[in-house]
Amino acid sequence: MSKLPPSIETSPGFATLLDYRLTVWRQDYAELAIEVAAKHLNRSGVLHGGVTATLIDAACGYAGVHSADPAHVRRTVTLSMTVNFIGQVDRGQILTAKASRIGGGRQIFFSRCDVVDEAGRLVATGEGTYRYRQGSEHPA
Amino acid sequence: MSKLPPSIETSPGFATLLDYRLTVWRQDYAELAIEVAAKHLNRSGVLHGGVTATLIDAACGYAGVHSADPAHVRRTVTLSMTVNFIGQVDRGQILTAKASRIGGGRQIFFSRCDVVDEAGRLVATGEGTYRYRQGSEHPA
Amino acid sequence: MSKLPPSIETSPGFATLLDYRLTVWRQDYAELAIEVAAKHLNRSGVLHGGVTATLIDAACGYAGVHSADPAHVRRTVTLSMTVNFIGQVDRGQILTAKASRIGGGRQIFFSRCDVVDEAGRLVATGEGTYRYRQGSEHPA
Amino acid sequence: MSKLPPSIETSPGFATLLDYRLTVWRQDYAELAIEVAAKHLNRSGVLHGGVTATLIDAACGYAGVHSADPAHVRRTVTLSMTVNFIGQVDRGQILTAKASRIGGGRQIFFSRCDVVDEAGRLVATGEGTYRYRQGSEHPA
Repeated sequence: MSKLPPSIETSPGFATLLDYRLTVWRQDYAELAIEVAAKHLNRSGVLHGGVTATLIDAACGYAGVHSADPAHVRRTVTLSMTVNFIGQVDRGQILTAKASRIGGGRQIFFSRCDVVDEAGRLVATGEGTYRYRQGSEHPA
Repeated sequence: MSKLPPSIETSPGFATLLDYRLTVWRQDYAELAIEVAAKHLNRSGVLHGGVTATLIDAACGYAGVHSADPAHVRRTVTLSMTVNFIGQVDRGQILTAKASRIGGGRQIFFSRCDVVDEAGRLVATGEGTYRYRQGSEHPA
Repeated sequence: MSKLPPSIETSPGFATLLDYRLTVWRQDYAELAIEVAAKHLNRSGVLHGGVTATLIDAACGYAGVHSADPAHVRRTVTLSMTVNFIGQVDRGQILTAKASRIGGGRQIFFSRCDVVDEAGRLVATGEGTYRYRQGSEHPA
Repeated sequence: MSKLPPSIETSPGFATLLDYRLTVWRQDYAELAIEVAAKHLNRSGVLHGGVTATLIDAACGYAGVHSADPAHVRRTVTLSMTVNFIGQVDRGQILTAKASRIGGGRQIFFSRCDVVDEAGRLVATGEGTYRYRQGSEHPA
């Protein structure tokens, strides 16, 4: 049984496949959590960099599209992203990706993200540039 | 049934979860292929950026650790990576990530990667910086 | 006396300070050249990474804003950029930054750039994401 | 006359050409300041992205090579860097690049940097991956 809380927003595709959860979401901020399992490992038996990149991309995107109105789903497209892999992550660890929207305007926004383990150790950082999809520019 | 060839190297973790295949591998070069399925999509119904990042990270890493000797498995750690998302990708498309090792030395190497669809359209690019794990510095 | 050809476009600010030249410019492509002098060096006596980043940013930008009509000056804003430093560069070398626009649409474009020395050795690579300024979206 | 304090470390090359100053330097942290002048502008009359990239590269590097012993000059080589351009910067503004070493070990380190204007507005962010030059791995 997972130690993670349920996701604020469920999504049937890649989020379900990886089992990452949106655990905090407010204006300009989002947190995702994941419990690192065998399915997330690379050929060397440690966390695949693609999992880290996925968390950063998703968290950075969520940070820019919060809406107070559940009927107004805001969407975004990633233009570019970067990841720095600072510490190795092993199976069984719980990671939290903490992303903030740090700038931008009506069409473009910038977010950045820290990924930390349960001990608060920084294991990765990343940044992303995003474009709002049409109709998603405003929170309400 | 998949239209993809089997993978040159099978790995039980994230590679199997996503079902990407190592289809070409030689000194300083690697290709991965994936058929985009429902499990790879994001909350907007198109390819999740994390899948693209995974292909780029894995292909760029493979490009630096080819070995002519099957008994000598070379390993690497990603230090940093970047992704540019140039075109949207929908379900059903087959993507190929083509990565080349473009520089570096005994401890560090650099690779870059183009991700193209079946029509040869460039859908993403990326670059990565890698460190060889101890014992993996040399091809043979 | 400089071994470099004059610049296709002269600009009084940073381009003049560094003395980099726009030497090739056509639709979706641009080349800049620079002769590495004492003023371009860092505290360790080799080329400052900021010079390399400047060439990449400028060349990638130029690649997206060529115009066949000299009266129609197109402008762009950099959203994000990345640089990989592959080889060390010493004083006296001539570098060429070769950038191509590799994708994008009416508002956003993507370019990438190779920086090579006189022997054709790849010394750096980079990529950038750009936004057209209003009125600069079209070549003509 | 410049409003900036003198630099903690003076360097005859690119630092002098651009006139950026090292204003704060301690273990794992560095600040650079610059007063944006005509020589720093791009062809559109605003701050050239290369200046921003230079500040980020230099500040991130300094953050990793502080030494308590003035006779022990530590040196580093940039492997890769990224920049996000969040806000436009005009002539006359004073920018401060605030960089922290956020991880790494004996050979490699990671830094990141915020660039802010006098009003504290975030105008750019960036990250870098660095390798210590031989003999520079330790602070003392």
